[in-house]
Amino acid sequence: MASFTRLIRFLARDGRTYYGDAILPQGVSDIRAAKQARLIVGDIFGTHTVTDQVADIRLLLSPLAPEDVRTVRCLGLNYEQHAHESGMPIPKFPVLFYKPVTSLSGPTDPIPISRLAQEGEGLDYECELVAVIGKRCTDVSEDKALDYVLGYAVGNDVSHRDWQIKRGGGQWSLGKGFDGWAPFGPGIVSKSLIEDPQTLKISTKLNGKTVQESSTADMIFSVKKTIAFLSQGTTLLPGDVIFTGT
Amino acid sequence: MASFTRLIRFLARDGRTYYGDAILPQGVSDIRAAKQARLIVGDIFGTHTVTDQVADIRLLLSPLAPEDVRTVRCLGLNYEQHAHESGMPIPKFPVLFYKPVTSLSGPTDPIPISRLAQEGEGLDYECELVAVIGKRCTDVSEDKALDYVLGYAVGNDVSHRDWQIKRGGGQWSLGKGFDGWAPFGPGIVSKSLIEDPQTLKISTKLNGKTVQESSTADMIFSVKKTIAFLSQGTTLLPGDVIFTGT
Repeated sequence: MASFTRLIRFLARDGRTYYGDAILPQGVSDIRAAKQARLIVGDIFGTHTVTDQVADIRLLLSPLAPEDVRTVRCLGLNYEQHAHESGMPIPKFPVLFYKPVTSLSGPTDPIPISRLAQEGEGLDYECELVAVIGKRCTDVSEDKALDYVLGYAVGNDVSHRDWQIKRGGGQWSLGKGFDGWAPFGPGIVSKSLIEDPQTLKISTKLNGKTVQESSTADMIFSVKKTIAFLSQGTTLLPGDVIFTGT
Repeated sequence: MASFTRLIRFLARDGRTYYGDAILPQGVSDIRAAKQARLIVGDIFGTHTVTDQVADIRLLLSPLAPEDVRTVRCLGLNYEQHAHESGMPIPKFPVLFYKPVTSLSGPTDPIPISRLAQEGEGLDYECELVAVIGKRCTDVSEDKALDYVLGYAVGNDVSHRDWQIKRGGGQWSLGKGFDGWAPFGPGIVSKSLIEDPQTLKISTKLNGKTVQESSTADMIFSVKKTIAFLSQGTTLLPGDVIFTGT
């Protein structure tokens, strides 16, 4: 489906915003190292072309334009080791919550801490593999689930523990849904480059220090299990973003 | 802002779908009694015109087209009497959760019960006042909050108690977010017709029998309190739909 390898959305030197396919220096896989991209024209979820026109990247933006996202789903606790460490039981079903589309932001955007979020304690990060849906689907089986993926990114499920847990009446949404509290990116790596999403290293650095480090092999609900489950009785749309849990 | 009085979306006799302003028989206020509507052209959240062109209504649809909705927010428990009856404490803050845009449906659509939703027990209705946001807003005060409302509807927060409570890991989203599980309508009554949204009667009939009956005067968090609170650090967008709790 996707003809790009690493989809980015960026502000170019000409002051305009484009979708592009990041051009990486030889031997480099970090999208943040890209200085240029080939412009993409058309519908990134449908018919589109990666053109020969190259533009200079001034700033990487959220890899999906706000109007191209429909629904942001997130899973709670989804790594075995993390579950054991926190003394939490392994969940039997994926634990689902949502963020509003306004929570999405880009890899270099500041994360605003609103007046409400400055009350109480417990600002926190949660590093997660993000899967982006590329094709509409309902009731998909596990063995077909990855066919509906556009690609993968990494995201931060920014959380405020007091609003999430103590003040949310048991529902996590309030402490996780503020503007810009779902940064993801730096781009969307086409699924054509990632044969098995359960073999990826994932880590968080805070001021240079590694504070989370794991492998997606440790995920309780794999990407295909997650998509198959979430699609039961529920239509997933192109541009739906799934944060797969920490 | 809105020049319509009762916004509907409908399938017309000509087989096309339109936004329209429902034409009610003299002395009737139930939108379901409308046989015709004046067509609306333009952006219902921005510049639009209620034209003189009249069309016959064949079927009332979800009052907002799926592509015109951004985020569906819902509140939990929000009526004092209901809280007392269920022995639940009055929440200190609104209890927030989300539904996906695919859950929205119209006033006459069947509610699909998927295979997953046929497992377990506890299919239930929750009749709620629905407020639709008409203008983008962030950090609004209570006294300005209703300025950002397009209008009001009534909705059913369809729920499956086992998936919501027992199998959801504490998060309600799973048991409330299936396709078509947020029917609302029959239209959106302009806020120009509803000076105070806290004076409305609200009731549910199941097979002709009244099973829920209350007044929005009993709401713990009024519409203006709800919008002011939800907008703190969070941008509400035109087309955001808020189910204000049962």
